[in-house]
Amino acid sequence: MLEIYSKNLENAVNEIAKLPGIGKRTALRLALHLIKAESEDVFLLTERINKLKTDVCYCKKCYNISDHEVCDICLNPKRDPSLICVVQDIRDVIAIENTSQFHGLYHVLGGVISPMDGIGINQLKLNELFQRINTENIKEIVLALPATVEGDTTNFYIYKNVKDKVEKVTTIARGIGVGEELEYADEVTLGRSLLARMDFDVAYQKK
Amino acid sequence: MLEIYSKNLENAVNEIAKLPGIGKRTALRLALHLIKAESEDVFLLTERINKLKTDVCYCKKCYNISDHEVCDICLNPKRDPSLICVVQDIRDVIAIENTSQFHGLYHVLGGVISPMDGIGINQLKLNELFQRINTENIKEIVLALPATVEGDTTNFYIYKNVKDKVEKVTTIARGIGVGEELEYADEVTLGRSLLARMDFDVAYQKK
Repeated sequence: MLEIYSKNLENAVNEIAKLPGIGKRTALRLALHLIKAESEDVFLLTERINKLKTDVCYCKKCYNISDHEVCDICLNPKRDPSLICVVQDIRDVIAIENTSQFHGLYHVLGGVISPMDGIGINQLKLNELFQRINTENIKEIVLALPATVEGDTTNFYIYKNVKDKVEKVTTIARGIGVGEELEYADEVTLGRSLLARMDFDVAYQKK
Repeated sequence: MLEIYSKNLENAVNEIAKLPGIGKRTALRLALHLIKAESEDVFLLTERINKLKTDVCYCKKCYNISDHEVCDICLNPKRDPSLICVVQDIRDVIAIENTSQFHGLYHVLGGVISPMDGIGINQLKLNELFQRINTENIKEIVLALPATVEGDTTNFYIYKNVKDKVEKVTTIARGIGVGEELEYADEVTLGRSLLARMDFDVAYQKK
């Protein structure tokens, strides 16, 4: 491996290289950049990273990331509290928020049921979801989990548990992506998008 | 741009995204990883990054990175102080050290002469190099700068200033890389490697 003639540099490189997707060489490049950077910039970086552990928590309602007990989305009076979108991860909340197409609240599971990875029902915020459905006035659950075997398993598990308690359980549409060529789509996606075909005027109105 | 519903997360993402080669999306992935990581690991990471600014300095002899006033390479009595390898960057020191083929000392310029990037003679440790040549007993200068116009300019500038003060000025060999196919080498490299051809037995002995 890389031999580095400074214990402090080596220590920093080893820690940076523990971050996902960052190898020793990238870690060294980043560490050398930080050595050359202004001290105040480096201390600001590390202070803000530390704050991720000290000042960020999970919203106690939806388990989204939050600076307070309850997150800004849950607190926003303009959002529809009877509509809950169930997602796997905080990144999905950010992705959906960026579409500006959803005005309900979220519920972040923290993953999907995956016995192969040791993720069972109790590792996810599923009971917390059912609790919300029992205590809050929720009309529709939108399932926005990944289109994988694990995502579908989780979808069915949620559906089975909530279908009698809410008016509607929906799932985001699977189909050909906007701007995508049909010939490159896999057959399952193409098949599903044919089965879920929509009236032309409805589809273009929604767009 | 990404809208993130936590000021602390957003602040951390913005700082991480200032690192070279790291975009907003990667920064977000890293920040979310850090939120989920153990506090002690995160604090260790930031402490070690801070130490890069507080405990790392440049060796006052060769300008390599060092934990002390003079670096371990310069202090090593087994190394030949009459042989100085001139490099652009600390990464080159690490790369050359990893070959185990060089037993002299280094001189890290901190770049190469590049008027386009505003890097002149005074931005580099060139006068410090000439000073070393005047005061230390140096026999050979090995130029190991990049094979670019800027590297060559710097090579010529150093050569002109030191050629009468040391016994030998050498430069690392340019040629076809080990394991490289001739057909993919550019013509300048191939041409140089023909001009610098070596006796067979000498070449294979050196290998």
